[in-house]
Amino acid sequence: MWFVRIDMTNRSAAVSEAPAKYKYLAGRAMTSTLVADEVPPLCHPLGPSNKLVFAGGITTGTPAPTSARISVGAKSPLTGGIKEANAGSSWAADLAVMQIQALVVEGQPAEKGKYWGAYITYDGKPKVEFFDATEYTGKVLPEVFPKIYEKFGDKISICSIGTAGEFGYGNSGVVFNDLAKRPTRYSGRGGLGAVMGSKGLKFLVLNRENAPGVHIEDKALFDEGRKKMIDALRTHAITKPKGALNSYGTAVLINIMNEAGGLPTRNFSSGRFEGAPKIAGEAIFETNKERLGKELYNHACSPGCIIQCSNTYHKVDGSEHTSCIEYESDWSLGANCGIDNLDHVAELNALCNAYGLDTIETGVTIGVAMEAGVIPFGDGEAAIKLVHEIGKGTPQGRILGAGTETAGKVYGVKRVPTVKGQAMPAYEPRAVKGIGITYATSTMGADHTAGYTIAPEILGVMGKQDPLSNEGKAALSRAFQATTAFIDSCGHCLFIAFAILDIASGYQGMIDECNGVLGTKWTADDILKYGAEVLKKERAFNEAAGIPKEADRMPEFMLKEPLPPHNQVFDIPESALDSVYGEL
Amino acid sequence: MWFVRIDMTNRSAAVSEAPAKYKYLAGRAMTSTLVADEVPPLCHPLGPSNKLVFAGGITTGTPAPTSARISVGAKSPLTGGIKEANAGSSWAADLAVMQIQALVVEGQPAEKGKYWGAYITYDGKPKVEFFDATEYTGKVLPEVFPKIYEKFGDKISICSIGTAGEFGYGNSGVVFNDLAKRPTRYSGRGGLGAVMGSKGLKFLVLNRENAPGVHIEDKALFDEGRKKMIDALRTHAITKPKGALNSYGTAVLINIMNEAGGLPTRNFSSGRFEGAPKIAGEAIFETNKERLGKELYNHACSPGCIIQCSNTYHKVDGSEHTSCIEYESDWSLGANCGIDNLDHVAELNALCNAYGLDTIETGVTIGVAMEAGVIPFGDGEAAIKLVHEIGKGTPQGRILGAGTETAGKVYGVKRVPTVKGQAMPAYEPRAVKGIGITYATSTMGADHTAGYTIAPEILGVMGKQDPLSNEGKAALSRAFQATTAFIDSCGHCLFIAFAILDIASGYQGMIDECNGVLGTKWTADDILKYGAEVLKKERAFNEAAGIPKEADRMPEFMLKEPLPPHNQVFDIPESALDSVYGEL
Repeated sequence: MWFVRIDMTNRSAAVSEAPAKYKYLAGRAMTSTLVADEVPPLCHPLGPSNKLVFAGGITTGTPAPTSARISVGAKSPLTGGIKEANAGSSWAADLAVMQIQALVVEGQPAEKGKYWGAYITYDGKPKVEFFDATEYTGKVLPEVFPKIYEKFGDKISICSIGTAGEFGYGNSGVVFNDLAKRPTRYSGRGGLGAVMGSKGLKFLVLNRENAPGVHIEDKALFDEGRKKMIDALRTHAITKPKGALNSYGTAVLINIMNEAGGLPTRNFSSGRFEGAPKIAGEAIFETNKERLGKELYNHACSPGCIIQCSNTYHKVDGSEHTSCIEYESDWSLGANCGIDNLDHVAELNALCNAYGLDTIETGVTIGVAMEAGVIPFGDGEAAIKLVHEIGKGTPQGRILGAGTETAGKVYGVKRVPTVKGQAMPAYEPRAVKGIGITYATSTMGADHTAGYTIAPEILGVMGKQDPLSNEGKAALSRAFQATTAFIDSCGHCLFIAFAILDIASGYQGMIDECNGVLGTKWTADDILKYGAEVLKKERAFNEAAGIPKEADRMPEFMLKEPLPPHNQVFDIPESALDSVYGEL
Repeated sequence: MWFVRIDMTNRSAAVSEAPAKYKYLAGRAMTSTLVADEVPPLCHPLGPSNKLVFAGGITTGTPAPTSARISVGAKSPLTGGIKEANAGSSWAADLAVMQIQALVVEGQPAEKGKYWGAYITYDGKPKVEFFDATEYTGKVLPEVFPKIYEKFGDKISICSIGTAGEFGYGNSGVVFNDLAKRPTRYSGRGGLGAVMGSKGLKFLVLNRENAPGVHIEDKALFDEGRKKMIDALRTHAITKPKGALNSYGTAVLINIMNEAGGLPTRNFSSGRFEGAPKIAGEAIFETNKERLGKELYNHACSPGCIIQCSNTYHKVDGSEHTSCIEYESDWSLGANCGIDNLDHVAELNALCNAYGLDTIETGVTIGVAMEAGVIPFGDGEAAIKLVHEIGKGTPQGRILGAGTETAGKVYGVKRVPTVKGQAMPAYEPRAVKGIGITYATSTMGADHTAGYTIAPEILGVMGKQDPLSNEGKAALSRAFQATTAFIDSCGHCLFIAFAILDIASGYQGMIDECNGVLGTKWTADDILKYGAEVLKKERAFNEAAGIPKEADRMPEFMLKEPLPPHNQVFDIPESALDSVYGEL
């Protein structure tokens, strides 16, 4: 396995054998370990000491289903702490088949305003060349991606940033191509696009030609595991073909969360949105059906995915509008802004993809701007104008591009739904207590994917748990956070969790696949320990970066303002919050 | 002594006897104790749980010289920690002679956009009435103050906020009248104006008529102390009549700091400014002389001050331009922005006073905006336009009004000279190491007044210490911080320090005055303990607010970029920084 280090100080690259001490590290375990080992916790996130690390998971690049995930890590400009954000893309598989265990971008050019691309090929080992990419800056990504395909051919995969990353926004993602070559797959959270932009790096282009592929230590065991995983995914109601995700996408959650009274509405002032049915996954499906004259099931974001949850939304004339409207985006740009017009939500989603923005952070920031009176709640057209301002870097746009917490400070708003500087996602903590514990305590800032207790609390995975109850929720969040840290390292999409938590053989399948690839003999216990180790490293980094346990808290308004319709506050005791990592 | 509590939730006031447990607390000791005891450390600074506390010092309202200081405390919107900012004004003396030990503003009205004033008189005890002040909002303060004098008569003192406080800016001060009834005396730092604004409070008007005056327990001892203090102040070269401060004001430091290579220039990129002589205190004196045709010595900011260091700067036609151009303002709006035109600096100073802004935070923020390319370094006219934008609340203005650290985030700048969210003042830590330790470790964020080691390191007070040396500087900063916490509580202006640290009888005079007022028998040791206790309370509040010792650090660029002309970095070890409070 290779380590590829790109030093942007002088645009040099070093390819070396991966360090033996990192042998079993992949995905989030790899990025978080490298950031913890090499990035000074108190460095400026946009300065030369920060490092941007890319790593595929253990099974990435193999025929394991739904395994083409790429982890991106760095010190976050949004939270000031450690960050891992992952996406599904052929880019992940390409990095893996070139046997690159970690791609590390370091340093920073002295010169400002010039941008570069790195083109990585394989010839006995990985090889890096640089090209001037300044001409591709200041443009929307759907204009830029085709030019890169034109330049390097169809076989490549692209990683890039939009103008958001160029401007150094706390809200700026790292984008990867989807299977239709569109710039739509985001490691969106935490401002990693700005870290890439601060290094003068616009593209990381991979060409997998002549790559040797992933070495699998025990092919028979791997195949056995893979079969178990496929069976579980094809059986479970949520992940099976024409099941919930394949039909309605993640946006199927809009109606479910609204019903549960946990769909944050108008800047987290209610848990129920009267316009929810108009923007729900079912509405996306029906609108497409009406506009295309046929039923359209969802597609895969990355090679080998059999869940296939990504939708494409179409305009009135049947032409493509945007892909994909995830639940989180649909909610943040819709319900959270009081917007119930799906065409407006789709346009906002398309603009986030075009400018390189995280949809969650964007929608929550606009919600705060609406609360400040900048534009009215529900005004989709005004919101569209604001996102254009973000993408163009006007003063108003810069305020919003800096992310929710900073925008809240600039506007003097006191109802700002963030933890550790990161905007809360689409599940109301006052209505779903376990996910609130994850928001409060995660090393990532408010992040649903860090410990998705929605699975049991709302979807009944592993048996239904009362979302309004506090009982056992700290332990639940802790277990989910540790398991997730492993899943984020194994290469699979987090959505395997629905199937493998309900179907034991699926869980064993994940372990078998990993043991097959690595030649290890891990048990279910080892998996949890592996995940816990990752969390501990992340936590230690954050503490050294000046983020203490007192940062594991909800914003004050959630402790004081009862949320309709359940009229509950977030009432998890601080001792329970502290126990999540205290007892890890 | 009285406690006056104003609850803005419903505009009610409660006057009660001061709690016995607070018997010896005054000034900063009073405000910090009350904030520590009553404000939840994790509350939103602009929310209903924050409290704004006003307290005069031990000798305030007595004939002790230079003693009319008012401390204002709260949880700071700028730093997220505890804040005390003090000013000199007749308002302080008026509060003291009404025997109000603490004035506490609590709660928050539900209704937005309406502002109120509180009019406090004395009739056997303090009495509070409210008046609608909405008509006075959205205006510059020099328009507003005369209307309040017109309304309540000439005998009053006024505390207020400008539009900066109304907008909820992190950069917004609380302003008090000077002796010429101008809105010029600021508790400027830390965004306390926004806390006042968040409570819908525009004015606190005091009318001292019929007030009983300060009770002095041992008049003879007090008089003895007062005489020692007066003798020291009248003798010392810095504080005596027609001495350094009386002639050139605090801006006498421009040339001195420039000579020392410690005058931060162009956003802390050099320690020397070629334009320094053009904006120095001497230049202010000479310009006034030329424009007025006579020498103009400085005046007192508050009743009873015999140092009299406040200048008034005049326009070409001899009319008044602004009062007072302090060293810090002169530097921040001048050298730090590369501006060497004194008329531009004066106008910027006048605008800060008019809009209710802290001059330090304003100048440092504009320096960061200049670094971001918003306007060029040195362009005074463009800077004036920016400050108008701040005062008017345009998007650009809001970015800058939020303070240096937030503006740095919005602009994606990595050279941001702040500690704990507060802009660094006018002394370069790489050229004067002791003051850097104070910046790094103070409970207040970067603050020169928290432990002014400039006295020995630059001015030779107590014997000259090498500013570039690290030797003994942690202990020096610790001793200065503890002593300062007492001085900030005793009612005297910090500028007594020059005299009392060099002249032992002056120091004893301060102690005698306090013992005289309170009937205590404090020794010099007790003074240090009193100060240390204040610091410990503040530190504990900050830790509970999520500000750990890892926040006691300089920004990365100061550790890496050598500063001309001495070409030194800030090289105080972290262990030394930790020892400041670790060994308190």
